[in-house]
Amino acid sequence: MNSIFSDRISDVPRSFIREILKVAVDESIISFAGGLPNRDLFPVRELQAAANKVLEESGKDALQYSSTEGDPALRKWIAERYRAKQGLDIDPNSILITTGSQQGLDLLGKTIVNEGDGVIVEEPGYLGAIQAFSLYKPVFHPVPVGEDGLDLNGLHSVLAKHAPKLFYCVPNFQNPAGISYSKENREAVAQALKGRKTVLVEDDPYGELRFLGQQKPSFRQFMPDTSVLLGSFSKIIAPSLRIGWIVANDAVMDKLVIAKQAADLHTNYLGQRIVLQYLKDNDLDKHIALIRKAYGSQREAMVAGIREHFPVETRYTLPEGGMFLWITLPEGLSALTVFERAIRQKVAFVPGDPFYVNRKNVNTLRLNFSSVDEETIRTGIGRLGEVLKDMIRKG
Amino acid sequence: MNSIFSDRISDVPRSFIREILKVAVDESIISFAGGLPNRDLFPVRELQAAANKVLEESGKDALQYSSTEGDPALRKWIAERYRAKQGLDIDPNSILITTGSQQGLDLLGKTIVNEGDGVIVEEPGYLGAIQAFSLYKPVFHPVPVGEDGLDLNGLHSVLAKHAPKLFYCVPNFQNPAGISYSKENREAVAQALKGRKTVLVEDDPYGELRFLGQQKPSFRQFMPDTSVLLGSFSKIIAPSLRIGWIVANDAVMDKLVIAKQAADLHTNYLGQRIVLQYLKDNDLDKHIALIRKAYGSQREAMVAGIREHFPVETRYTLPEGGMFLWITLPEGLSALTVFERAIRQKVAFVPGDPFYVNRKNVNTLRLNFSSVDEETIRTGIGRLGEVLKDMIRKG
Repeated sequence: MNSIFSDRISDVPRSFIREILKVAVDESIISFAGGLPNRDLFPVRELQAAANKVLEESGKDALQYSSTEGDPALRKWIAERYRAKQGLDIDPNSILITTGSQQGLDLLGKTIVNEGDGVIVEEPGYLGAIQAFSLYKPVFHPVPVGEDGLDLNGLHSVLAKHAPKLFYCVPNFQNPAGISYSKENREAVAQALKGRKTVLVEDDPYGELRFLGQQKPSFRQFMPDTSVLLGSFSKIIAPSLRIGWIVANDAVMDKLVIAKQAADLHTNYLGQRIVLQYLKDNDLDKHIALIRKAYGSQREAMVAGIREHFPVETRYTLPEGGMFLWITLPEGLSALTVFERAIRQKVAFVPGDPFYVNRKNVNTLRLNFSSVDEETIRTGIGRLGEVLKDMIRKG
Repeated sequence: MNSIFSDRISDVPRSFIREILKVAVDESIISFAGGLPNRDLFPVRELQAAANKVLEESGKDALQYSSTEGDPALRKWIAERYRAKQGLDIDPNSILITTGSQQGLDLLGKTIVNEGDGVIVEEPGYLGAIQAFSLYKPVFHPVPVGEDGLDLNGLHSVLAKHAPKLFYCVPNFQNPAGISYSKENREAVAQALKGRKTVLVEDDPYGELRFLGQQKPSFRQFMPDTSVLLGSFSKIIAPSLRIGWIVANDAVMDKLVIAKQAADLHTNYLGQRIVLQYLKDNDLDKHIALIRKAYGSQREAMVAGIREHFPVETRYTLPEGGMFLWITLPEGLSALTVFERAIRQKVAFVPGDPFYVNRKNVNTLRLNFSSVDEETIRTGIGRLGEVLKDMIRKG
């Protein structure tokens, strides 16, 4: 039966995290593996009120087919927020509502990447992007990221040899490593790409979730003509609505709209209307402040636990926002091996492997701190610390 | 800037209907151009009650990320309905919830079609499918459809020369022509495909909307191993929720799930839960009976209008369900030319051209009867009849 399938799908591995989450369904396991926002912070009552209002006042409209680009008022709201929060001048017509920002990745791959085209990804990088782009059979050029952002030597070295079509990055509180690009690093990256046709894709699902430090400028400040920007309501309102967006200039937008229409006609419109009503009737900043406070405390609990329980040989990032923290184990200790032992001790995480395009049995792993309460974080990090100490001592 | 785009997107035309609908926004124009269900029949209050119940009783669950395959209880409901209504034995695990059945087309193209692979489409055929598959650069093999279904000679002639990967069809109340495949025609098509690797894609968004005649068996009855079946709540509940599904066997499902995850992680889950709650608390059959009755009357009004006002040289189909009716003008009269004149007389439709993969200036056109009330249908058909009589008399 295999011959019926396309070449492109044969190259894409089943999601590693998906398989891991299946292992971790046992309720006695403390899981730092998922990438879920904290469900206790969802504005349930407010969204219920918004849903009622929309269906009460304009139910027939909200239930009918709608435009591929998305609700005009919602796109206007997003443009105004970019202006207010980041000083970005974005035309609402440059915004396409997508079925989560994940769909933005698929649409960009579809409209830009030919087989064999170069795509720069961060190392480690977001596996959902690697998976989405993989379907279009690119050649990946991984460039390492560190505490201050992208490794510039690595970038220059790729650009010296290749002319990549896309450069995909998560410059704020990166998934998986939790790092952010400094302002200087962003400027240097933009400078390196200047005059090239490489489209920079800035994926920014976590940018609003900063609990420490100062906001950094979007790449759109430095390279408005050759960057696209992805955003999402998943981490600041609720993910199940699957409402994200792409900011892109006219030429790219024109192609994205064609691809979007072929992909699903339009993003669920009732959800768009509920989100818009919620935004009109509530103070989003106040809500985000609650999330920041909670995630800041959860991150503190995790860092404190790591300092107390992990062996001194392990290194960890100190994210200023977002949902993830990244652990580097001593050289030679595979996180996959640790994972097997950890599961037996009832604690789960994501081994680093799926975040790399061409490395196996890496000594890094991702911890999520947003979906687990502080006490459980302490218990889970304690368990993981015991496993690590045991393995490093014996290793 | 053009060189940044992929080859696949360059080949896809902007939707013709999209452009036409822009022309037809003038409120004084009576439009038979859209493909919209009748908004007056949406179960607004019932969906509002369902949304309230879901958010009241399990808001946190309903707002969190969910599984790529879709809500298990919704998939079970769909499987049970297939059993009850069509005697089909379908495992809920063989059902993938998609972002409208349009997404099913994209996922099938993505997972099955390599550049240059053959895809059989109906002539005329659903343009959304043509658009979705186009992105994967197939070679289309159009096979004509008539009042009883697919032209078997045309099918045999394609199969004698080619080994198509996919055969896409809408056997119930086809979009655009409104025709249905007879039982005998389905059996003959299945027989012709027997022993071949061609996957038959049965797209069935309208099957429940039968107002005349007897239900016909799904292709899944005749070829369960080599067919996939697409369904949707868009025409029987509401389209804005974007909830459809694919029924496929294990090997295909495995690939579809990978592609679905890369495309948008999962279909909006709040919408899935609202639909499920609606289905639990309401009698869908009773609701569908209302739609059938209304569309049946609207179709009657349109046929009566055509008989009264259209010149005798025009032919028309007599759909037993669905939303569309197909007009064939005298040879040599381009529907595009009629369209320009009709717009000036304040009536719109879709000229046949976009429903063909390789014909231009065709003498056919599509009329939608579901979204326009009976009185407006009479007025609009009257206007169109005047235009046609004028053009045919002068032609």
